[in-house]
Amino acid sequence: MSGREFFTARTVAEARAGFRPRRRTAVEHVPLAAALHRVPAEPVPAPAPLPGFERSTVDGFAVRAADTFGASEGLPSYLDLLGAVRMGAAPEVAVRPGGCVAVPTGAVLPEGADAVVMVEYTAETLPGTVEVTRPVAPGGGVVGADEDVAAGAVLVPAGRPLRAPDLGLLAAAGVTAVAVHARARVAIISTGDEVVPPSTVDLAPGQVRDATASALAGLVTDAGGEPVPAGIVADEPGALKERLLEVLPEADLVVVSAGSSVGARDETAGAVAAVGDIWCHGLAIKPGKPTLLADCGGVPLVGLPGNPLSALVVFGQVGVPLVWLLAGCDTPPPPSSTRARLGRDLASAAGRLDIVQVTVREGVAEPLFGPSALLSVLTRADGYLTVPEPATGLDAGTEVEVVLYR
Amino acid sequence: MSGREFFTARTVAEARAGFRPRRRTAVEHVPLAAALHRVPAEPVPAPAPLPGFERSTVDGFAVRAADTFGASEGLPSYLDLLGAVRMGAAPEVAVRPGGCVAVPTGAVLPEGADAVVMVEYTAETLPGTVEVTRPVAPGGGVVGADEDVAAGAVLVPAGRPLRAPDLGLLAAAGVTAVAVHARARVAIISTGDEVVPPSTVDLAPGQVRDATASALAGLVTDAGGEPVPAGIVADEPGALKERLLEVLPEADLVVVSAGSSVGARDETAGAVAAVGDIWCHGLAIKPGKPTLLADCGGVPLVGLPGNPLSALVVFGQVGVPLVWLLAGCDTPPPPSSTRARLGRDLASAAGRLDIVQVTVREGVAEPLFGPSALLSVLTRADGYLTVPEPATGLDAGTEVEVVLYR
Repeated sequence: MSGREFFTARTVAEARAGFRPRRRTAVEHVPLAAALHRVPAEPVPAPAPLPGFERSTVDGFAVRAADTFGASEGLPSYLDLLGAVRMGAAPEVAVRPGGCVAVPTGAVLPEGADAVVMVEYTAETLPGTVEVTRPVAPGGGVVGADEDVAAGAVLVPAGRPLRAPDLGLLAAAGVTAVAVHARARVAIISTGDEVVPPSTVDLAPGQVRDATASALAGLVTDAGGEPVPAGIVADEPGALKERLLEVLPEADLVVVSAGSSVGARDETAGAVAAVGDIWCHGLAIKPGKPTLLADCGGVPLVGLPGNPLSALVVFGQVGVPLVWLLAGCDTPPPPSSTRARLGRDLASAAGRLDIVQVTVREGVAEPLFGPSALLSVLTRADGYLTVPEPATGLDAGTEVEVVLYR
Repeated sequence: MSGREFFTARTVAEARAGFRPRRRTAVEHVPLAAALHRVPAEPVPAPAPLPGFERSTVDGFAVRAADTFGASEGLPSYLDLLGAVRMGAAPEVAVRPGGCVAVPTGAVLPEGADAVVMVEYTAETLPGTVEVTRPVAPGGGVVGADEDVAAGAVLVPAGRPLRAPDLGLLAAAGVTAVAVHARARVAIISTGDEVVPPSTVDLAPGQVRDATASALAGLVTDAGGEPVPAGIVADEPGALKERLLEVLPEADLVVVSAGSSVGARDETAGAVAAVGDIWCHGLAIKPGKPTLLADCGGVPLVGLPGNPLSALVVFGQVGVPLVWLLAGCDTPPPPSSTRARLGRDLASAAGRLDIVQVTVREGVAEPLFGPSALLSVLTRADGYLTVPEPATGLDAGTEVEVVLYR
């Protein structure tokens, strides 16, 4: 069954909005040191307030603020130095009216004090007496016991990949393990009689090494997923269906890079139709039109064009968001991008998303053309720009947003 | 020795340009599947041309282009169908004048042919005869044997972290292992009598859990480095020097987050001065002024402020580029960023780089203020903007570039 005539093409926006599996990966607990970029399954609450005690934010003297009111260079307040607080220890002395206690940055505010005067606005002209030359308001130089985080407040939300600073806040709160979604397991199947493993040293005439699987594995890893190499399937009736039935039980997402010929593509559509429901066959994107999306009993499947460049472009647009979504992340982290002026006119068809590979030099985005069969374009490009679906092209000089590869 | 009075503050730009260790990590060979974001030590040349054979880029018929000249819908060229080329196999038939051979996309161009007519511009009205309704130029529908990559051409350059598509091109060329720089080993030391491990359940008064080390480990990992936790050192004379002597032989970079009090900072400077040469003490950056950079017998050392937020900001500005550089990458991959309008006026001092944490909502960057001692600012922020060194501030409404966290 070819299937091609039964399914309408969709736009990329329709696919992103409509092809959203309900499936999410299981929840697992990982130690903080392994939690970078993992997606919390639930908001993580603070077990206790932070910093947990009234804390000085400056080096200086803990005082009763009222004792400094009206102090100036010409008419300082004179306070009795009653002692000092050590870092990491409970204060051994309280502040009484007319007195002060030396405190380093980060130390506990002693009882009786409600502010800390910075050392810069003080002088110890007589032993045991501190001159204060500037008033401090109540609360000045101090953070409250729950000013950073209140007990029970959300330290990090669910669904947003953990960033380096998040790990710091979790550590501060004593959270040393986090419940996160497992990495989405992405089975990667290549098809085509001409495709051989990258380790093949001598190619027979017409053979090509599998470029797409290695590059897809990189994109999956970048999206927080776990690539599961699932080999190369020849263009034989039944072979792809058999491989699909093998990988589906263990996969959260299946990616098939189809053979590049019409026959091979039809073979793919037939095999997929035998194990699942085709959601669309054909995407309004260039390159990448012969893309297939299907639901295989709850496991989404992306059928990619055989051309490696097209396959990677499409996977970036519709596959990468799926890898994030399956692991509980609705909104993938933003890609790197830069503004540039377009170096030449670009034609496009209305209703189709065009992805154009570009170099960026001194603020000018220069499209890379040539046969789309060339893989080297993707390594020479600094990134890509998109010509949106409604546009019929972009004029040279237009300001464009270039998504940068990294 | 305090050291503070002997060293001038530097700007961040001076530090980036002048504090550049010669040291590079060793070269190791990693398989392609583990090479993502690793930094090639040498340019990787193509062992052979790609695709390696003259290849059809379309489904159609291999022809001698001259046989199609003048063909039109009204007056087609009629060619004898001589056979078909199978995918991944050598052609078994050549094209002679007046003849054609069916070829799928990606197949080898048969001998005698110099172009491929797309199937869309043909018809097989009589068995064994193909009507061509549009002329094709020589080379049309074909990529040359070395058109993607010539033998010996550079597949990927040295010094640029490998991206997903690079892995595809390397795989296509049969390169299954790459010589890359080892990950930079970054020893992370925390100091301070008040600092305890994140796993500490019950805090004594004045104690804080070590937030900085976990967050720094995340930043190091993001920069392709290998964080090496090196524990917490108390503010005791000699303790930090001893720990530094332990970690230096195994480290490519040492990071010390200093105690936050003046005394603790002086202790750090003294210990560092005893094992290396201080390059600067004080950076013209806010937050993060009390930063120290030193050369410890060829191993760079970054002494960070005790305040976790300041420490992370400074490490992002001067530490992250060092982690990349040590592994052979001069120009780190660009961060994610977005343009936004500033939501309110920002004051700054000329000559100082200000890093301002912001949220971004609907194109408006809203600064997050509050005591810099608050760690939660970094998890609430979407990113940061910089007020450049010459500026004395930015007006509300100014268009700013916000570097986004990810």
